[in-house]
Amino acid sequence: MEKEITFLEELSSLIELKDSESIHQLMESLKTEDLIYAYNRLSKDEQVSLIGLLSPEDAAMLLERIPQNQAIEAIENAQIETAASILNELYSDDQVDILAELETEEAEAILEEMRPQEAENVRKLIQYDSESAGGLMVTEYLAYDSAMTVAQTVKDLQEKAEEYEDYHVQYIYVTSDNRFVGVLQMRDLLLSRPNTKLDTIAIKNAKTMLPNARLEELIGFFDKYDFFGVPVVSETEELLGIVLRKDLREAETERSNLELLETQGIVGGEELRSMPVWLRSKRRLSWLSVNIVLNIIAASVIAFYQDTLEEVIALAVFLPVISDMSGCSGNQAVAVSLRELSLGLVKPYELARVLWQEIKVGLINGLVLGLLIGLAAFIYMGNFYLGLVVGGALAINTIVAVSIGGTIPLFLKKMNTDPALASGPILTTVTDMLGFFLALTFAGAAMSYLV
Amino acid sequence: MEKEITFLEELSSLIELKDSESIHQLMESLKTEDLIYAYNRLSKDEQVSLIGLLSPEDAAMLLERIPQNQAIEAIENAQIETAASILNELYSDDQVDILAELETEEAEAILEEMRPQEAENVRKLIQYDSESAGGLMVTEYLAYDSAMTVAQTVKDLQEKAEEYEDYHVQYIYVTSDNRFVGVLQMRDLLLSRPNTKLDTIAIKNAKTMLPNARLEELIGFFDKYDFFGVPVVSETEELLGIVLRKDLREAETERSNLELLETQGIVGGEELRSMPVWLRSKRRLSWLSVNIVLNIIAASVIAFYQDTLEEVIALAVFLPVISDMSGCSGNQAVAVSLRELSLGLVKPYELARVLWQEIKVGLINGLVLGLLIGLAAFIYMGNFYLGLVVGGALAINTIVAVSIGGTIPLFLKKMNTDPALASGPILTTVTDMLGFFLALTFAGAAMSYLV
Repeated sequence: MEKEITFLEELSSLIELKDSESIHQLMESLKTEDLIYAYNRLSKDEQVSLIGLLSPEDAAMLLERIPQNQAIEAIENAQIETAASILNELYSDDQVDILAELETEEAEAILEEMRPQEAENVRKLIQYDSESAGGLMVTEYLAYDSAMTVAQTVKDLQEKAEEYEDYHVQYIYVTSDNRFVGVLQMRDLLLSRPNTKLDTIAIKNAKTMLPNARLEELIGFFDKYDFFGVPVVSETEELLGIVLRKDLREAETERSNLELLETQGIVGGEELRSMPVWLRSKRRLSWLSVNIVLNIIAASVIAFYQDTLEEVIALAVFLPVISDMSGCSGNQAVAVSLRELSLGLVKPYELARVLWQEIKVGLINGLVLGLLIGLAAFIYMGNFYLGLVVGGALAINTIVAVSIGGTIPLFLKKMNTDPALASGPILTTVTDMLGFFLALTFAGAAMSYLV
Repeated sequence: MEKEITFLEELSSLIELKDSESIHQLMESLKTEDLIYAYNRLSKDEQVSLIGLLSPEDAAMLLERIPQNQAIEAIENAQIETAASILNELYSDDQVDILAELETEEAEAILEEMRPQEAENVRKLIQYDSESAGGLMVTEYLAYDSAMTVAQTVKDLQEKAEEYEDYHVQYIYVTSDNRFVGVLQMRDLLLSRPNTKLDTIAIKNAKTMLPNARLEELIGFFDKYDFFGVPVVSETEELLGIVLRKDLREAETERSNLELLETQGIVGGEELRSMPVWLRSKRRLSWLSVNIVLNIIAASVIAFYQDTLEEVIALAVFLPVISDMSGCSGNQAVAVSLRELSLGLVKPYELARVLWQEIKVGLINGLVLGLLIGLAAFIYMGNFYLGLVVGGALAINTIVAVSIGGTIPLFLKKMNTDPALASGPILTTVTDMLGFFLALTFAGAAMSYLV
């Protein structure tokens, strides 16, 4: 605890002193997690000052490590010149991720200040969807003409070793007149005679991707092949860039994280507590306000049976339990379906199979939960029939809840709707209504035994 | 849709015909996702037959792709000899992951049948915790003695190219008398004179990890350094294995997935619908039965105020809404805290800061939600004071719910309890009780205006 406070205070005071050199040394000494934490804990003003005090290389390193929202904010708040010099140092995919989120005017101003070659590259890349091969690729790669010899290639590599240090040099790409010919591993250079032409040793039938290939397709590709990267090649066979396995994994993890946040009601992207209160509040409310309307609609079932409830007031104790427990059981099934969908173990049209698999679990769990709540109701009121009414309602409702919970994500996926976002609210609305209806109808039917 | 049915039926009938060759061809032609799907859809008997019909290499490839639970099951159900020959083909970390999950006797029998060298290696690795560097490392790497020259090394690489094909050959590790000396990149060989000794070009101050280094430490390491792997070295400087960035990411993703499944009430590890019904049912019930008890305790607050409720029966309509909406608001805050904890943006002891950040959002959202439900209550009953009672209760309860939701994951983390698992149930129990209490106390106080 004390250690954290030390480096945080030290960073704050160094920023106030504008001591660039000491800041550089402190940053070098910090673990990544401490660096991320320290940046997050600085005030907005301190964050802006810090970015201005860092060398472009250090600032770029920092921006690559902090959450993307914060990186975008840092660039927004920086001077145009500072922003441009930092962006020059980032990998092409990060450049695009940040610039795509800025206001058009601001992005344009920064691009004007960037190195012309980098800016031109960004302008090309920014047109691709961020979840396509074009949007995920980097343009930092090594390409040599197929007519070059191994010796010439090695010489170039040797001369530009420093420049290439930041490149992902697992592979060398061989082109001819800008058209993609094939791929070479470093060790292929090692194992060939110096005067061999690259053309004769390049692997010609290398797998490539079109720039509009979707994230799913890329995930499938890297699952199947153990490569570090795949070249992205246009329809006219021009080499455009490389999608690296590591960047793909990041995109995949990010998507699955956002999806799982959605199931908890965090919508519109990741929420960080460093965001403005009104924005956090607005985003959460957008989901809550839909839910409260659905909730009130569901609760109106109770209003409809008010007479029954008036006679058996004890039921009011158990209605929230029925509503909550059905939601819990249903959400378990939703979670399993979302997971099986993302693992590819189930197809969206296999509603019947999933339904059958869930009904079996629903039967067992419905019986057990119904028994438990029935017992509680019986003990509480000393009335066996109240136990039967409440337990029966929860038992049936559990079976329905897991059936809907298991199938609704498949159905929504089939309809091209986001299953992570909509499954929960739909599920709880239906199960609330049915649960209230069952409990109150059963009570109405057994009224003479209950009062 | 038809395509899937085709390959699935084809695979089934080939298994029945025991046509190994055609199965091999079919598997080669399938995309990974189709392969995973097809295997999942086979009956248990077909799965066992399929594993028996495949070459050990093909079976190993299949096992690496399907979910780990299914891979373990496949090995359990296979003949000992078949299991051993498949395990021989797997990477060391996968060998250990599977064998560690088997009954000791069965694992022992398989180890007896494996190649002695592989078996000995597994016996060494299996003692490490699966979330430590020792448990995550692979032992397939290239190590050469520091006294060897570049030319000798290149010659060996050339001769054994085929054998090394499956190795992760980004780096070459240099040892002396089995002690770790340093690391070399492939390109360092390329750029050095043939008679140079490895000792003179190896990077000596290379970062290493002890075998008991924790997953968190490794994540921090790979965040900070852009390496593909890190050597694991014992206290006596013996090189034990390599933790690869890709395996670490897998472990990290797996852990975060399990954590997020836990928040939805899937406990005890991943649930696949191919598991036995009783097991799926039992695991879900273990979480549900705790919840129903908590729910009944919370609902007993209503029982305590039964007299109030009897007089203002309309309240019964709104109690489930208050309970559900407070749960929703609180769970949003839980999700943000879990995420910020895993991103390292917040430390477990920063309860006060998070509390303050959540109270602000809680104030706004509480007011808005309170207004909405108050309005609904007013419209429904035509009684302004009912709206005030219900709206006031939800408003206050929302503020409390987001405050608890934001802080309880930090508190549980500080207590070394699993925040993903326990936050939800604790949150909803507290907010249910308080919500019911507030609504019914307010109603009691305003009784003369309500009836």
